[in-house]
Amino acid sequence: MTQRKLRLGAFIMATGHHIAAWRHPGSQIDSGVNIDHYIEVAQTAERGLFDQVFVADSPGIGFRGGEEALRRQGRVSYFEPVTLWAALSAVTKHIGFVATASTTYEDPYLLARKFASLDHISKGRAAWNVVTTSADNVHGNFGLDAHPDPALRYERAHEFVQVVKGLWDSFEDDAFVRDAASGVYFDPAKLHALNHVGKHFRVKGPLNLERPPQGYPVIVQAGSSEDGKELAAATAEAIFTAWTSPAEAQAFYGDVKGRMAKYGRRPEQLLVLPGISPVIGRTEEEAQAKWAELQALIHPAVGLAAIAPFWPGEDVSRWDLDAPPPYIPEAPKGIQSRTQVVLELARRERFTVRQLYEYLAGARGHWVVVGTPAQIADRMQEWFENGAADGFNVMPPVLPASLNEFVDLVVPELQRRGLFRTAYEGRTLRENLGLERPGNAFAQAQRAAA
Amino acid sequence: MTQRKLRLGAFIMATGHHIAAWRHPGSQIDSGVNIDHYIEVAQTAERGLFDQVFVADSPGIGFRGGEEALRRQGRVSYFEPVTLWAALSAVTKHIGFVATASTTYEDPYLLARKFASLDHISKGRAAWNVVTTSADNVHGNFGLDAHPDPALRYERAHEFVQVVKGLWDSFEDDAFVRDAASGVYFDPAKLHALNHVGKHFRVKGPLNLERPPQGYPVIVQAGSSEDGKELAAATAEAIFTAWTSPAEAQAFYGDVKGRMAKYGRRPEQLLVLPGISPVIGRTEEEAQAKWAELQALIHPAVGLAAIAPFWPGEDVSRWDLDAPPPYIPEAPKGIQSRTQVVLELARRERFTVRQLYEYLAGARGHWVVVGTPAQIADRMQEWFENGAADGFNVMPPVLPASLNEFVDLVVPELQRRGLFRTAYEGRTLRENLGLERPGNAFAQAQRAAA
Ligand SMILES: Cc1cc2nc3c(=O)[nH]c(=O)nc-3n(C[C@H](O)[C@H](O)[C@H](O)COP(=O)(O)O)c2cc1C
Ligand SMILES: Cc1cc2nc3c(=O)[nH]c(=O)nc-3n(C[C@H](O)[C@H](O)[C@H](O)COP(=O)(O)O)c2cc1C
Repeated sequence: MTQRKLRLGAFIMATGHHIAAWRHPGSQIDSGVNIDHYIEVAQTAERGLFDQVFVADSPGIGFRGGEEALRRQGRVSYFEPVTLWAALSAVTKHIGFVATASTTYEDPYLLARKFASLDHISKGRAAWNVVTTSADNVHGNFGLDAHPDPALRYERAHEFVQVVKGLWDSFEDDAFVRDAASGVYFDPAKLHALNHVGKHFRVKGPLNLERPPQGYPVIVQAGSSEDGKELAAATAEAIFTAWTSPAEAQAFYGDVKGRMAKYGRRPEQLLVLPGISPVIGRTEEEAQAKWAELQALIHPAVGLAAIAPFWPGEDVSRWDLDAPPPYIPEAPKGIQSRTQVVLELARRERFTVRQLYEYLAGARGHWVVVGTPAQIADRMQEWFENGAADGFNVMPPVLPASLNEFVDLVVPELQRRGLFRTAYEGRTLRENLGLERPGNAFAQAQRAAA
Repeated sequence: MTQRKLRLGAFIMATGHHIAAWRHPGSQIDSGVNIDHYIEVAQTAERGLFDQVFVADSPGIGFRGGEEALRRQGRVSYFEPVTLWAALSAVTKHIGFVATASTTYEDPYLLARKFASLDHISKGRAAWNVVTTSADNVHGNFGLDAHPDPALRYERAHEFVQVVKGLWDSFEDDAFVRDAASGVYFDPAKLHALNHVGKHFRVKGPLNLERPPQGYPVIVQAGSSEDGKELAAATAEAIFTAWTSPAEAQAFYGDVKGRMAKYGRRPEQLLVLPGISPVIGRTEEEAQAKWAELQALIHPAVGLAAIAPFWPGEDVSRWDLDAPPPYIPEAPKGIQSRTQVVLELARRERFTVRQLYEYLAGARGHWVVVGTPAQIADRMQEWFENGAADGFNVMPPVLPASLNEFVDLVVPELQRRGLFRTAYEGRTLRENLGLERPGNAFAQAQRAAA
């Protein structure tokens, strides 16, 4: 038996995952709209034999804080994910492309079509990160009076994914004959209209595009609520998640995989990929200095805007940054458990205001590992070998600089340990991830009936 | 003054514009989903210094005729246009990309975003062919009971285009400061929410993407009804159209340009580009033989399906293909005037059934010119110099073969005559087409108010 290998995705937040990355000299300052930057980054990730690159997305601008914070926001202008990945697929050969798209604000026919298109264009390297969109600044762009509540969003998401898969099955895999001599192009018996009628959608079909090379693009999910985990257990093949301790990650790993059996699925059909934001130095001191340099780039207005929601009604801008806040509140309801942990930590350790916002804002709540390549590989190995992760969503704090370092320094270390591939195994993203190619549901139903 | 130059677009119907092209050895048989084919074709068009490549589109499969015709249809499976062009923009440098997208079935925020994305990714080479979708097989894919009637579709189209342009103006051209030292990324005073409230749409904005390099991607239109011409006069910068005689084309040219003044626009702000499907031979005989070879590839079932709608209730499949049809009907109401002309011709010349369907189906109603490169250039020059065209939408009957011939044989002939460029003039599609870059409406309104 070959050794189980870890899966690596690169999380491509334009200038880097750190909130102040755009101010760092190692970042490409206009990268949200700089296609050459993305080409460089994707080719670097491919050089590092990553399984996939991933972009987060929201169809709207998220505003947080007042104008002082707003003008310092580096994330207001960036490419639409599917067009971006289509372009990059033409200048890469192996790497997969995970595009985030919303089941709350997109249309299932158009979405099925663009992802099927991307899968054909990339010759089987597309994946869809199914999100219900958490931001509540988006609904106004789509004629809605309010952001639908989570239960409704997830109900719609389940139906949406079902419709999209049904549309991807419009043509059976062998529907196209293309026989010039007889003039027969395809077999209409292998074309199926979906005729979906549900609570949220009526979609007739068929899709005007033959079955994607991967059968379905890989389905990814990134929510951690009860509803989110249930959606992942029912349909996802990879899940992105944010934990900062192995114990939390293990609990999540077991929880979500444990939910799969009732959907007739096996645990290995879903890869759990926690985020890790690695800050790499040749020595630990160098790594710590890098991290401190980045944290110092967080403008107080940006940091304060990130923590202000915990003190509703207070004018946080008047606080002394180098003293503890006047009091530490309970974490607001519905907020990530990670935030609760940090607020408790802040109370116990008497964090200053600046320490608190640096802790919360810098890596946006994700797991930061500061150290040498060997130290970072140690932590990854620990999670990977102890039921906390099938691989990682690597979130380089600064792009392109930190991805270059990861590929040049950490990847070889993982390879030396036999934890990571030394060449791509397959032709499609599915093959590289070790995921099965799904059959066509119409064809399977016909075979079952026969 | 430099001589006025003609504009050339290449109409990329996957296997070629001729209805039986996919059966021809000069075509790439699976080209609808073959990205390498499209790369070859786009690079050939760029080698030929074409302004743009263009794909038609409909978000659904059009079925015509019974199963015998259906299985012989070469146009049931093809890429979504914007993802396709995004990919090709990464492997070309100069050529523009016209993507067709429907104002009836798409959403204005998502559409504005994907076209702005394409314009950034291609560094200013995107264009949107605004269609209201003529096919009535599409509505079921979007939960509608019927295809909205033309007046409503065009009303929605006008509002849709207005919303999309407003979203493209969300950021002023100089909104992004990106000053790492001070930590200021952009100027919120130069960000504008649209706050559109209309009959068909409510869209708050702003768009999460800075202004496209071209200001707006080039707006193209392709309808010829009264409503279509009015939409073109109001907003389009290029119009694709189908005429087979210079007199018809001249009348159309004058008509549509004459409608522009009331929208405060000048005639040169709209380029009229009739379609031409060139069948090229070194001699006229060779060209005629090529055409005959193509026409003979139309399977009778496909040809009959194309003409059957004129004889509702008749079983046309039982007719003798080499005799005239039993009677020639009046053209059904609402059908293109071109069809009426053909039916009259058929009556006068006693066309056989086969001759009739070859005449009507082969080039799908577009202008076919069969001849030597010089003969084809003669016809183009005649239209161009006599107020019938500002350039052409070249519809190669077979792809890639016929485009290669056009680039190798007709382009040099046009260049020798001084009618066509010998190098790209600009960096963006707009610059190559000689179209102005539109200003930002919010910025203009503010200047006017100041
Ligand atoms: C690594 C990661 C990436 C995410 N990316 C996105 C994203 O791009 N867009 C989005 O709307 N939500 C994103 N989310 C949020 C989730 O999809 C989800 O909407 C959010 O966690 C709230 O859902 P929940 O209540 O199920 O946790 C992401 C979450 C994680 C952990
Ligand atoms: C060259 C050309 C290309 C066209 N391409 C499309 C197309 O891709 N998709 C579409 O729905 N309609 C297309 N049309 C049709 C028109 O956009 C329009 O819907 C149709 O002509 C009916 O509108 P009208 O009544 O204004 O003529 C095209 C027309 C022409 C002349």
